[in-house]
Amino acid sequence: MNALGRHILAEIYGCDENVLDDCELIEDIMVKAAIEAGAEVREVAFHKFSPQGVSGVVVISESHITIHTWPELGYAAVDVFTCGNNVNPWNACNYLTKMLKAKNMTATEVKRGVFEQPVKVVNM
Amino acid sequence: MNALGRHILAEIYGCDENVLDDCELIEDIMVKAAIEAGAEVREVAFHKFSPQGVSGVVVISESHITIHTWPELGYAAVDVFTCGNNVNPWNACNYLTKMLKAKNMTATEVKRGVFEQPVKVVNM
Repeated sequence: MNALGRHILAEIYGCDENVLDDCELIEDIMVKAAIEAGAEVREVAFHKFSPQGVSGVVVISESHITIHTWPELGYAAVDVFTCGNNVNPWNACNYLTKMLKAKNMTATEVKRGVFEQPVKVVNM
Repeated sequence: MNALGRHILAEIYGCDENVLDDCELIEDIMVKAAIEAGAEVREVAFHKFSPQGVSGVVVISESHITIHTWPELGYAAVDVFTCGNNVNPWNACNYLTKMLKAKNMTATEVKRGVFEQPVKVVNM
């Protein structure tokens, strides 16, 4: 298939709860994950929740990487969405799994923006 | 299923190319989409690409909404990820489809963070 983007949805379990609750560290890991994928960082936005948990995003030239953490469950929901052939989203995903000290990770890759068929034939 | 989050992946086609290329307008629409869903906006990060296209994210208390636009194709890739029972991600998705003046939209909802089974049984 000829798709504009590759989108990995990763469920990362058994993570280190202290890492998951450290907003600065999560931001640092996320930026480095983007670089691991070969991406160019454009914007970052992170937020620490009370009493626990971090949400954040790295906007890259090639799309985005997001994370939401539940330290109390040792769980992080990660998305890595990349466009183009010069980046490998799995490198970011695997790097994050390692840096979150996860015991396991399951992930699915979804193609985004597939234009094989003329889109106008199904117009409303 | 008992999931932490609901994640909608929306492929939005036949959009108004001028809307898709207007970074300020896209940011405004995205923030309003979050409010339509009943979400609380925490952070925003948007980026305008040259010669065209916008990428951006709204971090909400309930997770995130992201968009990537291809004005030349009339296409936007949208993700609406929400947690909790007080928000409806489809309201954001439908609002965005309307405001981008899209001719059609296809979307899939994925459950995120499902903890029915003990996660430790599949540890590596």
